[in-house]
Amino acid sequence: MSSPIRVLQYGVGPIGLACIRTILAKQATGSLALAGAVDVDPDKAGRDVAELLGGDAPATGVTVRDDAGAALAEIAPDVVLHTTSSFLDRMHGQLEECIRAGAPVVSSTEELAFPYDRRPEISRRLHEEAVAHGVAVVGTGVNPGYAMDTLALMATGVCCDVSEVHAVRVVDAGKRRRPLQIKVGAGLSAAAFEEKKATGMFGHIGLRESLLFVAKGLGWSLDRVDERLDPVLADREITTPFVTVEAGSVAGIHHAITGYAKERPVLSLDLKMFVGAENPRDAVRVAGDPPVDLEIRGGIFGDTATVAALVNAIPLVLHASPGLKTMMDLPVPRAFACFPGAG
Amino acid sequence: MSSPIRVLQYGVGPIGLACIRTILAKQATGSLALAGAVDVDPDKAGRDVAELLGGDAPATGVTVRDDAGAALAEIAPDVVLHTTSSFLDRMHGQLEECIRAGAPVVSSTEELAFPYDRRPEISRRLHEEAVAHGVAVVGTGVNPGYAMDTLALMATGVCCDVSEVHAVRVVDAGKRRRPLQIKVGAGLSAAAFEEKKATGMFGHIGLRESLLFVAKGLGWSLDRVDERLDPVLADREITTPFVTVEAGSVAGIHHAITGYAKERPVLSLDLKMFVGAENPRDAVRVAGDPPVDLEIRGGIFGDTATVAALVNAIPLVLHASPGLKTMMDLPVPRAFACFPGAG
Repeated sequence: MSSPIRVLQYGVGPIGLACIRTILAKQATGSLALAGAVDVDPDKAGRDVAELLGGDAPATGVTVRDDAGAALAEIAPDVVLHTTSSFLDRMHGQLEECIRAGAPVVSSTEELAFPYDRRPEISRRLHEEAVAHGVAVVGTGVNPGYAMDTLALMATGVCCDVSEVHAVRVVDAGKRRRPLQIKVGAGLSAAAFEEKKATGMFGHIGLRESLLFVAKGLGWSLDRVDERLDPVLADREITTPFVTVEAGSVAGIHHAITGYAKERPVLSLDLKMFVGAENPRDAVRVAGDPPVDLEIRGGIFGDTATVAALVNAIPLVLHASPGLKTMMDLPVPRAFACFPGAG
Repeated sequence: MSSPIRVLQYGVGPIGLACIRTILAKQATGSLALAGAVDVDPDKAGRDVAELLGGDAPATGVTVRDDAGAALAEIAPDVVLHTTSSFLDRMHGQLEECIRAGAPVVSSTEELAFPYDRRPEISRRLHEEAVAHGVAVVGTGVNPGYAMDTLALMATGVCCDVSEVHAVRVVDAGKRRRPLQIKVGAGLSAAAFEEKKATGMFGHIGLRESLLFVAKGLGWSLDRVDERLDPVLADREITTPFVTVEAGSVAGIHHAITGYAKERPVLSLDLKMFVGAENPRDAVRVAGDPPVDLEIRGGIFGDTATVAALVNAIPLVLHASPGLKTMMDLPVPRAFACFPGAG
C-alpha cells in the first residue's frame, strides 16, 4: 500500500473543520493523513485542531499555525485543502504561497471554480506560478464545482447536439446548518434583504462562475448574461432549530442567471435556497439530440457534499498536469478512500 | 479558428455510418472533417460513403477502403473512430495498426471500456504500443462508457463515504432501431432464447466491464461477482415497426450483475431492454454520506447517445496523455462542436 497523502488544511472555519473531520476519518484507511493546519486567526493558533473540533475529539498532535509560509516549508504537505474565502482578490496571495511551496491546492474559493472571467489577471498569475512550480490548483465544491456546472456539463456528454441547458437547484435551507440559513437571509425583513443585497456581497457566490464554466465547456459564446437575486418570502411561519421566520419575512433566496445567444435563453441556472422549500432537487435539462432530463431527487445535501467534493478532488489534482485547472479539466470526480459495505 | 480534426472512420456498419452522419453534420462547424473510411468488407470498398448512407446524401469524396494500413499511412488522420466489433480478441490487431500509424483511437468496442480484467494481455500490449507511439486509446459509448459506469462513478463525486452503488437502466427496445430489437431477442420463443444464451454471445456486452470500472474507480475490491441473463416475456402482443412479439414470447432481456464484498451486494447493475418496457430510465442510487438518488427520466436514448459518446470523446482523447485509457481517466465528457439555440 502506498503511503498516505499528507494534507495541510488551510482555513479552519466551519468548512475547514468539516474537512479535517473527514480527513481524520479517512486517516484510518491509510489514504490520507492530516499533516498540518493553518489559519490566519491568532485566537486559533497554537491549539490542537481537536480543540476546535470540540466534543470528545481526541488530540491529533496537529497544531493550528498562523505562519502559513513557515508551516508550508516545514510540513511540506502533498496537497493543501484551502477553505478561507469566497473571493479571489482577498486571498490569492494565500494560494500563491502554497504554490510557491510546491503544494498542489484544492480550494473551496467559489470564484476559483471558474476564475478567468471575473479575475483574469489573478488567473493568469496563478496559472503561471502553478506551471512554474509544477503543481495543479483547482477550485471546487458542491456548488460551484458540481451541482450546477460539472454535472450539467456531464449531462451533455451523450448528446450529438445541444441547443439549451437549464439547471435547477432547490435547497431546503431549514435542513442545513446555521451558517447557510444566515447566508440566505432567513428571518430578515424584506427591507433588510434589499439592504444586504445592495452591498453586492449577498446571495450565492459562484452562480456566474458556474454559468461561464458550462458555456466554456460547450464552447459556447454568450451575447449577454442576466443575473437576478430576489427574496423568497415565507407564506407561513417556519421554525428551524436556528431561526424562526414569520409569514411575510424572508425565507431565503431565489438567485437565477441566464445566458443568451442571439436573444435566446440558451443556458440558465436557477437556484432557490430557503427554509421550508418543498421538493428539494438538483435537475439538469438538456435540449438536444438526444435530450437529457436528469434529476437528483431530494437534491445533493450540501453540508457534507461540499467537503466530499473537496476531499475527492485531492487525488485528481495530484495526478493532473501543472497549472490552474477547473473541474472540466480533471477526470470525472468520484468518491475517494471509502469502503464497500461500510456504515 | 483552429483547423478541423481529421477523422478516419474505421468500420462503416450501422454505428459507423451514424458516426459518419454526425461528423458530416459537424463538418460545417469547422470542428471535424471526415478524412477517410475503412471497412474490412470488400463489398463496401471503393464506394463513396454517401452511397452507404443512402437517401439523398451528397457525395463526400471519401471512399471506403479495405486496406487499413495503407489508408492510415496515406491519410494520417488526427484520430480514428473505430466501430467494428464488441470483442477485443477478434480485432485488437486493428487497434494496434491505428496506434502504430500514430493515430489516437476512440472505439465502440465494449470490451475496451474496461479491458484489464477480461483481456489483461491485450490491455498490456495496447497500453505499451500507445505509450510508445504517443497516442491515447479509449473505449466508450452509451453503455458501457456512460450510463451504468461513468455516470455512476460521477454520482459518487459528492460523497464523503459510499457503501453501495446500484445502477438501473430500463430501455424500451420498441423505440430503438431494428438491430437492438434483434439483439435483445424480441420475438424469440423462450426455448430459442435459451439456445442463444448458451452460445455465450448473447445479451448485453459490457456489463461486467461497467461493474469492474465502477469498482476500480472507487478503489473497491470485490470478493465475488454474480451475473445473470434472463428473458423478459411479453405479457401481451406487442408490435413494433420491425417485429411482432406474441404474448408469452421473448420481449427482450433482463441482464444483471452484482458485486459482493464480505457477502454484501455492494455494487449492482440492472439492465432491462425489451419492447414495451414502461418507465424507461437510467438511475443511480448511491448509499453514502450524503446519499445520491440520480435519475435520467425517459432514459438516455441509446441510438444517438452511442454516437455522441464516441464523437464527444474525440477532443478528450486528443488531449490525453499517451496510453490505454478508460473514461475515468479522461475529463468529464461533454458535448462537442454544437451551437447554442440551434435546432
